[in-house]
Amino acid sequence: MSISNGSGSELHMNRLKNRTEFHLVQVKNTWKRKTGKGAAQKEHSRLSAAKIYESTTEDEVSWTVVSPIIFTYKVLQSQNLLHPSNDTLVSGHIRDPQQLEAIRSGTNRLKRFVVIDEMVNNLYGCQVADYFEARNVIYRILPLPTTEENKSMEMVMKILEEVHKFGIDRRTEPIIAVGGGVCLDIVGLAASLYRRRTPYIRVPTTLLSYIDASVGAKTGVNFANCKNKLGTYIPPVATFLDRSFIKTLPRRHISNGLAEILKMALMKHRGLFELLEMQGKFLLETQFQSTCGLGSHSDAASLSTRVAIETMLEELAPNLWEDDLDRLVDFGHLISPELEMKVLPALLHGEAVNIDMSLMAYVSQERGLLTEDEKFRIIRCMLELELPVWHKDCTLALVRNALSERLQHSGGLLRMPLPTGLGRAEIFNDTSDETLYKAFEKWCDQLNTKGPEMSQIMGLNLS
Amino acid sequence: MSISNGSGSELHMNRLKNRTEFHLVQVKNTWKRKTGKGAAQKEHSRLSAAKIYESTTEDEVSWTVVSPIIFTYKVLQSQNLLHPSNDTLVSGHIRDPQQLEAIRSGTNRLKRFVVIDEMVNNLYGCQVADYFEARNVIYRILPLPTTEENKSMEMVMKILEEVHKFGIDRRTEPIIAVGGGVCLDIVGLAASLYRRRTPYIRVPTTLLSYIDASVGAKTGVNFANCKNKLGTYIPPVATFLDRSFIKTLPRRHISNGLAEILKMALMKHRGLFELLEMQGKFLLETQFQSTCGLGSHSDAASLSTRVAIETMLEELAPNLWEDDLDRLVDFGHLISPELEMKVLPALLHGEAVNIDMSLMAYVSQERGLLTEDEKFRIIRCMLELELPVWHKDCTLALVRNALSERLQHSGGLLRMPLPTGLGRAEIFNDTSDETLYKAFEKWCDQLNTKGPEMSQIMGLNLS
Ligand SMILES: NC(=O)c1ccc[n+]([C@@H]2O[C@H](COP(=O)([O-])OP(=O)(O)OC[C@H]3O[C@@H](n4cnc5c(N)ncnc54)[C@H](O)[C@@H]3O)[C@@H](O)[C@H]2O)c1
Ligand SMILES: NC(=O)c1ccc[n+]([C@@H]2O[C@H](COP(=O)([O-])OP(=O)(O)OC[C@H]3O[C@@H](n4cnc5c(N)ncnc54)[C@H](O)[C@@H]3O)[C@@H](O)[C@H]2O)c1
Ligand SMILES: [Zn+2]
Ligand SMILES: [Zn+2]
Repeated sequence: MSISNGSGSELHMNRLKNRTEFHLVQVKNTWKRKTGKGAAQKEHSRLSAAKIYESTTEDEVSWTVVSPIIFTYKVLQSQNLLHPSNDTLVSGHIRDPQQLEAIRSGTNRLKRFVVIDEMVNNLYGCQVADYFEARNVIYRILPLPTTEENKSMEMVMKILEEVHKFGIDRRTEPIIAVGGGVCLDIVGLAASLYRRRTPYIRVPTTLLSYIDASVGAKTGVNFANCKNKLGTYIPPVATFLDRSFIKTLPRRHISNGLAEILKMALMKHRGLFELLEMQGKFLLETQFQSTCGLGSHSDAASLSTRVAIETMLEELAPNLWEDDLDRLVDFGHLISPELEMKVLPALLHGEAVNIDMSLMAYVSQERGLLTEDEKFRIIRCMLELELPVWHKDCTLALVRNALSERLQHSGGLLRMPLPTGLGRAEIFNDTSDETLYKAFEKWCDQLNTKGPEMSQIMGLNLS
Repeated sequence: MSISNGSGSELHMNRLKNRTEFHLVQVKNTWKRKTGKGAAQKEHSRLSAAKIYESTTEDEVSWTVVSPIIFTYKVLQSQNLLHPSNDTLVSGHIRDPQQLEAIRSGTNRLKRFVVIDEMVNNLYGCQVADYFEARNVIYRILPLPTTEENKSMEMVMKILEEVHKFGIDRRTEPIIAVGGGVCLDIVGLAASLYRRRTPYIRVPTTLLSYIDASVGAKTGVNFANCKNKLGTYIPPVATFLDRSFIKTLPRRHISNGLAEILKMALMKHRGLFELLEMQGKFLLETQFQSTCGLGSHSDAASLSTRVAIETMLEELAPNLWEDDLDRLVDFGHLISPELEMKVLPALLHGEAVNIDMSLMAYVSQERGLLTEDEKFRIIRCMLELELPVWHKDCTLALVRNALSERLQHSGGLLRMPLPTGLGRAEIFNDTSDETLYKAFEKWCDQLNTKGPEMSQIMGLNLS
């Protein structure tokens, strides 16, 4: 039996035993499969980047689809984001000149749904409302207690109900998230799910989310007492950064963000590490506010955040969906998820990360990758940044358990990023249990805050 | 201020006003941005397909990330899927020869979590269990009442809890869904979310899901009384097709699936339409079971399903995330979602789709795209397939409402696929309300099942 597709070409059902590669060509509104020769581009036709491979045997037919999806997003460091004269928040994400023109001409009233962290709402809610009022935008601001304990699917559903009630266009009316990493992660997940993908915008208001959650594609919530167990890899259309939010951030949360900056420094950038050594305390004191404009790009606050973001982007952009399991950005994140969830809410994310990094510095030294001097420079820097370097609940059992979890979920390899000097690193799969044990023992001996010798060893006055 | 990255190259913070394109090159475990020249590939280095564009002005710094993610999945038409000698269900999704070898050598016991439609479990549950028993797989079968009314986030969460309790490796232990489109959609969503993406396998057991849900990337659940309002575009790693499941499917559900086959025929394939005209009833009677093996590929059941899948893949592969809003596969799906949800559970998905397509045939004729004779051939074919061609709840108000919803969510254009003959189609944005009104009136006059003239007009004996 053969069947005609009506356009003259007959589709004979031969017993092909080979694999055929098909390109896809669109003429008018119809896509057609074409083998190599037929795919040559003609006028008015469009060639897709996708391909279909067909294999046929006596018993089976199979098709393999290979289809690339291109993700594009923007991270923009701006000033006075909430000033009514600043277009960024309403149109900074738009790349299409026509769409931009349509907005500027103001024919249609814009509509924006904003989810904001409750605390941030107390501090900046009026400014956000004033901004949209001044710009004649139809808006709804939804303040939510986006804490680590509330970081759950229930809150995602709550947001979705409100979004649905308000009504937004799935193409042109992005959902805006204003808050710390928790808020950005929850809203990102809600937007990823709504109509299978609704654009969203991230406005980070903590240092940690400014340099970390801001630049990647990850969204998520906690589940079954596990950190970020549910989520997606859908990047925002844009992230808008404004360091002035950090002014109101409690000091402890600035240290928290500094931990993730330190991570990038230790993995990739000696200059950034040295900047933190020298200026870390100053950054903490001045809350990352620069005296000169952004234009100068030359003060410690501008420079450190910029390098942190750039190094982060370098690692995230080529591995947006984390398909490559060898990731330097996982440094500090092997043991910390377990620790963070165990003691919740005692430790902040960056604090747990720092404790993990501190132990890893001991592992590095034990393996001969770091000198003792380098190790102490790292620990001293952490202490300067007012970050915890040891924790009683970070027991050897927890460490072993976390690493064996890691082993299971990383294709059978440990993939442990370790500093191999200040500002460079590699990934190792061969840290023996003995090394781990020795490093852990020394780590406890030297850093247990109850121990008498720490400040001496550190050569610091910690009082 | 300038900052050294320790590898010799200085990062000077010049006031660049231009856009710089960076490639990304990996040496050992570290990614580095490189401008054009620096990106030339050296030994032991890896070049990413991703790029970063940096722009700097006096006030702002911005980075645009462009990162392609390649989705690959397999659709395999097989026989005796549940026979213990058939490897497909445990390893048919694996492309990596090493991984395949590891499985064949059987060093580690495999682990599989299976979600199965409750009704399908009654019919095939024992066979599924026997299959895994015979192959010494550690398995858990979770039967669920996956009906359209239960197609919700609650059921997704229920699945996730059970998956989590059971424990699976996020890389190598795909979740298997066995059932109709509802089951496949819910499980697909659960898997998309678990650890931000866990592979899953689709085993469709209805005709509709065999030729439709089987081939694309869409997952989803209903929300706020709207069809598939929440979901993702994450394809399964593989879909395994076995037509023998259809043997036990109620006749009405076979008609239901035929509606989606008819959709592809009307949009793209005259030969398939003619096959349905001639053999549709026969296919319905014989429940898509062929007498000869799959190898022959030449009976009506093999041929019609194969062409339906191939034409569907042609349209889906180049537009996996539905970024292109002009979609022939949307035929029959402009009005039907509203109708389907309104009368739930009175109409099946394919039935609602068919009513939509029937009205659209009238719109096509009204616009002069179809002759009256062609229109009646289409309607007659639908009736032969035992599909409803009219419904009292499909009022003009509902139609107008559905189309205005469509307009809103399709970037301001209606994008109405219409047949322009038998087996070809185009997308139109200019169907006037008058045309719609006239078509609707005629549609009601001629097809209202209470009307006396229908069977006469159709030239059919419908009794
Ligand atoms: N998606 C990612 O790539 C990514 C990366 C890193 C971290 N995260 C997630 O981010 C979360 C941690 O983020 P976080 O540290 O920002 O926590 P957070 O969101 O809990 O914010 C910390 C606290 O600061 C308050 N706050 C926020 N902005 C403020 C401001 N400007 N002034 C005063 N108070 C303010 C908040 O109310 C909250 O109490 C974790 O859940 C982590 O998993 C995600
Ligand atoms: N993801 C996609 O691309 C896509 C495409 C088309 C449709 N869908 C979705 O699929 C759903 C419709 O799918 P469906 O028609 O398969 O409905 P369904 O899943 O509800 O199954 C129909 C009925 O058949 C029963 N059943 C299933 N297999 C059987 C078998 N082998 N023998 C006897 N009974 C059997 C089921 O228990 C159910 O009662 C809709 O929710 C629709 O939105 C999704
Ligand atoms: Zn982190
Ligand atoms: Zn459909």
